[in-house]
This record gives sequence, C-alpha cells and structure tokens, in this order.
Amino acid sequence: MENELKKFDIAELTHMELYTPDLEGTVWFFKDLLGLIETSREGKSVYLRGYEDTYTCSLKVTERDKPGLGHLSFRASSPEALERRVKALENSDYGKGWIDGDAGHGPAYQFVTPDNHLMEILWEIDEFEAPDKNKTILKNRPQKRPLHGYPVKRLDHAMLMSHDVAGNKELFMDLLGFKLSEHIVKDDGSDLGIWLRVTNTVNELVFTEDEAPNSEGLGRLNHFAFLYGSTQNLFEVAEVLKEHDLEIEAGPFKHGISQTTSLYVYEPGGNRVELYGDPGYLIFNPDWKPVKWTQEEVQDAIMFYGSPLPESFFINGTPNV
Amino acid sequence: MENELKKFDIAELTHMELYTPDLEGTVWFFKDLLGLIETSREGKSVYLRGYEDTYTCSLKVTERDKPGLGHLSFRASSPEALERRVKALENSDYGKGWIDGDAGHGPAYQFVTPDNHLMEILWEIDEFEAPDKNKTILKNRPQKRPLHGYPVKRLDHAMLMSHDVAGNKELFMDLLGFKLSEHIVKDDGSDLGIWLRVTNTVNELVFTEDEAPNSEGLGRLNHFAFLYGSTQNLFEVAEVLKEHDLEIEAGPFKHGISQTTSLYVYEPGGNRVELYGDPGYLIFNPDWKPVKWTQEEVQDAIMFYGSPLPESFFINGTPNV
Amino acid sequence: MENELKKFDIAELTHMELYTPDLEGTVWFFKDLLGLIETSREGKSVYLRGYEDTYTCSLKVTERDKPGLGHLSFRASSPEALERRVKALENSDYGKGWIDGDAGHGPAYQFVTPDNHLMEILWEIDEFEAPDKNKTILKNRPQKRPLHGYPVKRLDHAMLMSHDVAGNKELFMDLLGFKLSEHIVKDDGSDLGIWLRVTNTVNELVFTEDEAPNSEGLGRLNHFAFLYGSTQNLFEVAEVLKEHDLEIEAGPFKHGISQTTSLYVYEPGGNRVELYGDPGYLIFNPDWKPVKWTQEEVQDAIMFYGSPLPESFFINGTPNV
Amino acid sequence: MENELKKFDIAELTHMELYTPDLEGTVWFFKDLLGLIETSREGKSVYLRGYEDTYTCSLKVTERDKPGLGHLSFRASSPEALERRVKALENSDYGKGWIDGDAGHGPAYQFVTPDNHLMEILWEIDEFEAPDKNKTILKNRPQKRPLHGYPVKRLDHAMLMSHDVAGNKELFMDLLGFKLSEHIVKDDGSDLGIWLRVTNTVNELVFTEDEAPNSEGLGRLNHFAFLYGSTQNLFEVAEVLKEHDLEIEAGPFKHGISQTTSLYVYEPGGNRVELYGDPGYLIFNPDWKPVKWTQEEVQDAIMFYGSPLPESFFINGTPNV
Repeated sequence: MENELKKFDIAELTHMELYTPDLEGTVWFFKDLLGLIETSREGKSVYLRGYEDTYTCSLKVTERDKPGLGHLSFRASSPEALERRVKALENSDYGKGWIDGDAGHGPAYQFVTPDNHLMEILWEIDEFEAPDKNKTILKNRPQKRPLHGYPVKRLDHAMLMSHDVAGNKELFMDLLGFKLSEHIVKDDGSDLGIWLRVTNTVNELVFTEDEAPNSEGLGRLNHFAFLYGSTQNLFEVAEVLKEHDLEIEAGPFKHGISQTTSLYVYEPGGNRVELYGDPGYLIFNPDWKPVKWTQEEVQDAIMFYGSPLPESFFINGTPNV
Repeated sequence: MENELKKFDIAELTHMELYTPDLEGTVWFFKDLLGLIETSREGKSVYLRGYEDTYTCSLKVTERDKPGLGHLSFRASSPEALERRVKALENSDYGKGWIDGDAGHGPAYQFVTPDNHLMEILWEIDEFEAPDKNKTILKNRPQKRPLHGYPVKRLDHAMLMSHDVAGNKELFMDLLGFKLSEHIVKDDGSDLGIWLRVTNTVNELVFTEDEAPNSEGLGRLNHFAFLYGSTQNLFEVAEVLKEHDLEIEAGPFKHGISQTTSLYVYEPGGNRVELYGDPGYLIFNPDWKPVKWTQEEVQDAIMFYGSPLPESFFINGTPNV
Repeated sequence: MENELKKFDIAELTHMELYTPDLEGTVWFFKDLLGLIETSREGKSVYLRGYEDTYTCSLKVTERDKPGLGHLSFRASSPEALERRVKALENSDYGKGWIDGDAGHGPAYQFVTPDNHLMEILWEIDEFEAPDKNKTILKNRPQKRPLHGYPVKRLDHAMLMSHDVAGNKELFMDLLGFKLSEHIVKDDGSDLGIWLRVTNTVNELVFTEDEAPNSEGLGRLNHFAFLYGSTQNLFEVAEVLKEHDLEIEAGPFKHGISQTTSLYVYEPGGNRVELYGDPGYLIFNPDWKPVKWTQEEVQDAIMFYGSPLPESFFINGTPNV
Repeated sequence: MENELKKFDIAELTHMELYTPDLEGTVWFFKDLLGLIETSREGKSVYLRGYEDTYTCSLKVTERDKPGLGHLSFRASSPEALERRVKALENSDYGKGWIDGDAGHGPAYQFVTPDNHLMEILWEIDEFEAPDKNKTILKNRPQKRPLHGYPVKRLDHAMLMSHDVAGNKELFMDLLGFKLSEHIVKDDGSDLGIWLRVTNTVNELVFTEDEAPNSEGLGRLNHFAFLYGSTQNLFEVAEVLKEHDLEIEAGPFKHGISQTTSLYVYEPGGNRVELYGDPGYLIFNPDWKPVKWTQEEVQDAIMFYGSPLPESFFINGTPNV
C-alpha cells in the first residue's frame, strides 16, 4: 500500500523562487506587464502571485548577481504524505533537511537534484485571502481579475536543464512518485527530455539534457510558465511584450508535447519565461503509456506547427554559461 | 492508509450510456454535427467516441422507448483499487454485482444510486487504436481531428437529478472517495447541488435536487457534457446547431461553478447535452475548502454572466415526467 | 455624377458626445475599466479615445442632469464632399448651421434628425499623435495598447430611437448617401429598425422605433458601441464588468444582423453601452440587396443564439422616460 | 468630379483563377480541408466558393502544366463606373479588350499588368442562391456553414510578384483609383512592396518586388488568401493541415502590415495559400497617410511577432523559376 500511496503523495507545485540581477526590472515585468500581485517584500525578495493562484505566493523574486532558479516548492497531499516522502529523501543522497519556513508557508524539507537544483516539499501553507475591495462574487476565484497589465492566471510548471536526466527520473519517479507523461528518447535509448506530472496536467516539472557545463555548481533553469487559458491571450500579450521591447524568443505556437499553445520571452533579469494560452490536454488514464518522441521528431514535439524553434532554446539557460 | 488511498481509488469517468427513442436522430446529432466517431454497433446500441477520447467508447447510445441515462462507468486507479471499492460497495445497500463486460471493456461491478441511477466501476478497458489513415503525428492524440461536423474532443461529466442528494454525497464521498469541489446550499443547510471530482477538474459527477417524481423508478439525467477547449468553439458550434434546427436552451455563457464556458442543447432524442468551451479552472489544493454558494446566489453559480437561465433548466430532465 | 458621388460623400463616424449625470462614474467606467485614454478636459467635458481610434477624440463625455446623446459627428470624404452635403442639408428642414469647432476638430455643420438628435459633419480634424513613450513599432496603430483596464480598440456605431424611422431613412439615405444594410420590417411594410452604413461595415448608424414619447424634445439613445475584435474579449471583459458591479443587460451573444458578437452593459451614468467582440461580416457588393427580417424574426435578428433578449432592450433608452 | 469618382469606381475583388498541375489534389485541398463548395465544372476548370462568398465563384481552379495565377477579377461600383475605368484602360498600354463572360459572370474587360498578370473588371455577376437544404435562418449569410472540412468564409486578397512595382502603382492607383494603405520603402525611396485597397480593408491587391525573372513571360503569384475571422481558427486549421501532410511555411503569426493573423501553406498544386484569422484593422480615414515601413523594418512589417519568416517567403512564387 505504501507503494500505491507514493504516486499520490505529492499534490502540486506551489511556488518557485527566481534569481535576478535586475530586481526592479523583473518585478516591473511581472507586475506591470503580466499583472501579478505583490503580497510582501522581505530583504531582497519580492513575493508575487497570479490572480488565480490560491496561496499567497507563487513566485518569489530574489536579487542575486546572476539569474537562475532559487528553488521549487511542492506541496504534499497530507501531513502523512509529507512524512513518507521526507523519510524516503532522508534515506537517499538528495535530502538536505528542514527549514523553518518562509513568508507564506511553514516548515519545508529541502533536497537537491543531481545537478544541484534546490527543491522543497511542505504541508503548511497560507491561503491567499483578498482584501475586501478585491474579493469577487466569482466565489471560486481568490480575487478579482486585476486591472493592470495583461494578467496571467497562475503558475504552471518549470523546465530544468540537467546533466543527469536519468538520475532525475529516478529521484522524482521512484522516490517521490511523479509520473512520466511524455519523453524525447535518443537513439541510444536514453532520455533527452522527460515531462513529469503529479496532477492530471501533462507537466509540473520537466528535465532536459544540458549540453553546457553547470555554472558555479548550480543546476540551470530553462524556463518556467504561467497560464492564461486561451490562445487569443497569447496574441494579445505578445503585442504588449513587443511594444515594451521585450524579446520574444519563439511563439505563439502549439507544442506537440502537452498540446498547449505557448510563447517564450526573456524577462529583464535574463530568465526565459513561458506563457501558456490553451492549457492543452489532461491525462486521466491510470495506466498511461508515456508518449515517446524520437530525436528526429523533436521539432514536432516542441513546436508542432509554425516556424522552427531557434537553436537558442536548446542552449540558453540561466545562469548563462 | 486504506482511508488515505480511498480518495485516489477512482481515476476517471470513462463512458456513459444514453437512452434515446430516436436512435437515428441521436446518432446523426453526435456524428454529423458534433463529429463523434462510431467504433461499433451491437443490437440497438451504437458505440461512439470523441477524437481525444482515449478508449474505444465514451458514449454508448441505446434505443429505448424513453430518453435518459443508461449507465455511467468509472475506471479505478488499479486492480487493487477496484477490489477495495467493490468490497466497500458489497458491504453497502448499493452494490449489485459483476457483469462480464461490454464492447470495449471487461468485467465491471454494477451499483445503483439512491435514485436508481445505474453505475459501474471497472479496470479492464480497451484503448482506442486508430486505423493507419487516421493516425496522427501529434503523438499524444489518439487519432486525427475529424473532417466531418464540428468535432468535440472528449466526454467531460454528467449531471444527475436526485431526491436524495445527501445520500449520493455519502455514497460517492464516503464509500468511493469522490471529493466535493463546490456546492449550492439551501437555507436549511442541506445541499441543493453537489459538484464532485475524482481528478483535478471541478466535476466528473454532479447531483442536483429533482423536484419532480422519478419516472418508472429510474433516476433522471439533467445533462452530460463534451469538451471543445475554447469559447470560440461554442460560438461556432452554436451556429451549426441553430442552422440545423436544434434547440439551444441557454448559452454560450460562463458558469460561476467551474468557470467553464458552456451551452445547453437538446439532442433529437430529447436529452440535454452540454458543450464546454473554456475548460475552466483546476483544483490542485489537497485540502480544498468546497466553494459554497447560497440559494440566492444560484444564478451566479450556474450562469455567471449573460441572460438568466430559463426555468426549464432546473425542471427538465430525462425521462421527462 | 453628383448622384453617384453622393453615396461616397460621408466617409466615417468620428466621435460621439455622451451626456451623463455622473461624470466621475462615467469617466471611471471608460478609463479604468474599458481602457480609454483621456486626451483633454474642457469645462464639464472629458475627451477620450480608444487606442486604435485615429483622431484625438472618439468619445466626449459631458456632465448634464440627464443621460443621453449629445451629438454624433461624421467626417466627409473630402472638402468638396462636405460642401455638397451641407448644401443638401441647407435645402432641407434639418440643417442648423456652422459651429467653429471643438477640441480636436475644426468647423462643423450641424443638423438635426426628425426626433431632434443633434448631428454634425466636418472635414478638418486632428489626428492623434502619441507622446514618445506611447509610440509603438506597430506602425499602423496610433499608440501602444494601454496597460490599464481591459482596453477596447475603437468606436464603432450608435443606435438611436426614433418616432420617425421613415423620416430618418429619407434624411440619411436620400440627402446624405447612407446605404441600407439590413432592416426589420413590420407587417404593414414599414421599418421597425434600419441599419445604415457609409463604409463596408454593416452599421455606423441605426434607427429603431421608439414606443415611448421623447423626453424634453430630445431624441433618445439606445446605445453606442466600442469594438474589441474577438469573442474571447467579450468573455473577459464580462468578468471585469461583473466583478465591478456593472449591470450586464444581455450577452455575450451573437447578433443575427451584422453577425457581430456583443454584450450590453449600463455605464454608471445610465447609458447603455455595447461591446463588440467579433467584428462580423463586411459588405462589398455594390448592389447589395438589404437583408430583410420580419417582425417574427426579430429575436433571430438581434440575438441569433442564446437566451431571449430582455424586454428592457427594446424599451429603455436615454434620457429615460 | 470624374477624378473624385475614380477612387470609388472599383468596388471589390470578386474571384481569382488559379492554375494547378494537380487538379484533383488542389480541389481536394480546397473542398475537403478548407470546406469550399463546388458550384460548377467546365472543361478543366472547377468553380468554388466559401460559405460567405456572395457570388457563385470566388476561386476558379484550372488545370495547366504549371501552377500560378490565371487571372484576378474586380467588380466596378456601377455600370457607369465600369465604363469610366474601361475607357481609362483603353487609353493606356494595359487594355486588352472584352470577353463574353464565364460561368458565374457576364462580359468582362481584360487588361494586363506590366508583368503580364491577367486582370478583368466587370459589372454583371451571378449572386449565389443556395439550394433549399442549405439556406440558413442567418439571413445575411448566403448558405449554412458547411459540415465538411474546416471551412473558410471568403476570399480576401492576392499578393503578386513584380519587376515593376512602380508601374503597378501607377496602373492601379492612377488609372483605377486604388488607394495605398501601407508600403515597404527601400533606401533609394522606391517601393519594395505596396498594399492597395478599394474597400475599408487594408488590402485587396499587393505587389512586391520579384527578384527572379518571370517564367514564360507570366507575372508570378506570391499567394492569395481566404478569411476565417478568428485567430483560434488558425490554430485549429493548422492541426488539420499538419495532420494531412501539408507544408505550413510559416505561422500562425501576426502581420505588422494589416494587423491580421495569418499562416502560409502550400496547396498540392504548389501555390502558396494564406489563411487569415483575425481580420485586422480597417481604414476609414479619407485622407489616410500610407504607413511606411523601411527595409530594416521588413520583419516587423510582415511578421510582427514570432519566429523570423523563412527566406522562401520572399523568393518562392508560382510559376516557380
């Protein structure tokens, strides 16, 4: 039964910490253009959320000399589930130990990936309670849709770059119960990229092979994504981005993997951000056979139609090397 | 642990059987207008699926003197999960027993609701394998998008009418592990309607109070829904429906509950069909507090904006009484 | 040739003046919610425009004890065209005379309709020149898409209520060269409503029969419309409107006439405002036969699908009576 | 007055003749995938129209050894307007003479461009009258939306390749009254491309510089376009195209010029076809200053956001050289 429970023990991605060398620029991008809401500031960190993110923070932006991933935070399905997964991590090479918490959440257990991406899992977390003027009669929405920027709804997923995709597959699937939705497989049978889920969406966490060395021993970030909900939204936000001199790397286009519609843009701190339009398909089948794309099919897998994805997508990550 | 596992034991709604007094008309509606694909015929039944339904059947249409629900079929998360839920049903007033199977699936355990809606749970089921000419390079899609009709993607949920909403809540939540996403609560504290989920979507199964007596001892069907994926699709299919003399009861509009966009139409056999555009929000929070709408808020709950929902929506169901 | 030229002499609707008893509320509605841009203020008037309106003003909001239409302004195709149309008006019962101009335009010739709606035609008008920070690299757009509110693009048309639809038809078609796109015809053969165009769009100006007496001798306004461009926009602005307690009278739905998608909302001053999503079809055919809807088809004509249009739509206008 | 009238003498683009070496493949593409309706066949020609094209033919497909443009047909604003324009052409180097007519229209006056693209103007033309089963209660639409393929609404425009853009500008603007909406201007001040209109849309006819020699003395076709109406449509038809092995050259993306959303695809006969989603902006201003893009801005002009347009777009045309 422990083994059956494992695949349900992690419930969701709750937030991500992003490093930026340009705190002001990054916060302007997420607040003024993408309509995120600031919920608190502490030291060199600003805590933000989208208007349909249910907790007080889905994006923590922290000033640092180089851009990249601070950490990713996942919530367990219950206090017991948290205990079970922590035990598994403690018996592995990846566990680090508990921290007391942060703005918006209680104790969290930290661990690292083979590439030294920092992660945490937790149970106690603060739900967002809107001030009266922002409460909405749409009762399942945490607050009114903002009137500033072109607002995204919620955090969706992160894609990390790795020198040990197989090691991450083992860590996240065997120890933590993540499921494999789709993957790109090289001719030698090893994975070039793995799309992992803990919910019915295709991905909360993706690892793809990094061809460059890590910088300062830190695992690199390819991108992370916020969701709009409709392809039309991508065409409108692309105007906003282009009119404000942001660099759209690719899109709007449709991914093969996940069937979402998407665009990639660099925020002022240098990190790649993905914006999702159409949320794609959901996986309900409990014995889902992971969808396998070969190396030759990589273009269809990433960019199902449209112009070819630029080489930069596969190479650039933060920190840059 | 058994109790922890319970809430993950049912994985998904797989198909529904619909009764119709006009088999030809109903099949024309689903195939020629909504683009469903016929996979087999047996006796007075036609087996259909949407182009993104992963099994061989999501809608079985069966000729019968009156319209209404044949049965709903859910898939368990594993053979062990099926065993656990069957045991729980056998120890209740609702269990009926095993059947050998049907076109497209193996043995299924049947049970009934307090209103005598027929249900089944199963594990063994046939995945759809497209003939070569319909295979698609979009590898996570079971087949090409059809070139006939204005095609829906997949089955989404069903709403049933009940004289014992509380009994259904107990049956589906306590015995089968369904979770309550949203509900409409009467002034006396009892539920007027309950929106239940087994996945991250807001509803696979909904029960609302039936003010009319059951007909022939059969629980009534309010409607069931197929998904498109975008609000734009609703406006286009509404044209198709209207140009072919179908009766659109309401919509396109946006639901408060689930935030989906929707329209209701009567198929030629007399059953109400819902078409989903925007798929709405997902619930990831493992300790989700069900969203509660009061009786005064029922209009916002069902039809968040637009013209008022006609009285017929709350009264009509199949079989008609 | 004069007769041939007549049908091209009026080029476009340029702006409208709206009366409101709640200047602050009306300006909040148009700026904070609908994203209009304020270009100037004079006395009790605020001059506004959408981000794709090409002149400095498309909506002049003026404080007055009752809501309603101030005036509508049309631009001629050339100085010669203006001269020709003024001559025709001077020889009619409708001509009033020249005014010197207003913020944003030069001399204008005023005239009235049979119901005493005030109108003007002009040639000299100021094109909008964006301040540097709002200039856009999308060179055919007058300025960047705003980052406040949920911004409409441009003014589209006005619908006026009349006790003499036939008189207006004569005035606008025979004297001014407007063309009839569609009409609703009563059983006695007279027009219940006429949709008039000077461009390839279906309507710049609409007259429908007013069943109530005029108030203070002023012709009444049914509504005027701003354009978004996509049906998806209507569903998003409807959320904004509903979350800010505005009263949506009807929609989003699709008009039969014009095939636009639409919603109606009351602004705080009490005037009905229409928002267009899909811009509908265009008329290119130079010998277009006006599309005729009978009185029984009025529901399809106004609201092609969805719930019935409320009675208030046909009765309410400003000033209220 | 004659000069004033000139700019209104041509009313619209009515149809285009396309050459194809693969008649069956080309007709399959337009009928089975894009949902055009066949209205007649004569010899080696098939006559087609979209469901919102108002005449009996908007696309005539004719078998020939090489792909390319057969001819373009424009309708005058009146019989008198036709007479005036024919007289102007007869006094020029471009006039050819009258033909008796073709399926769907009466006498037409033929002329050629400096590159020997064949053109005609006409007045008498057959409006499409749907058979009873295809008549629709949406009375301004010529027929029901088809239930086959993913149907386009109507023909929009054509882009031709030229060795004498200046000569075409003179022919179409000075002799025929076309207006210049936007242009791309080379460093030496000459036009690289001109977007011409006779209606309020940005373009019915576009000429861009051809760097390759003409083949067989025939002016080349870059592409012609059919309209959907919404960006969402482009993403859905792109799936259909890709799933049926068609080559999407670029898009969906947004044009700078015209602000339409678009994709380019090669039909089986080898001609490039454009599909329009969002119909873009309209030009109402009677003294419109043509929007000028420099040679450095050509990417923004053609593809406002997304990946760069492939070189093939600027080079390939039919007949291929």
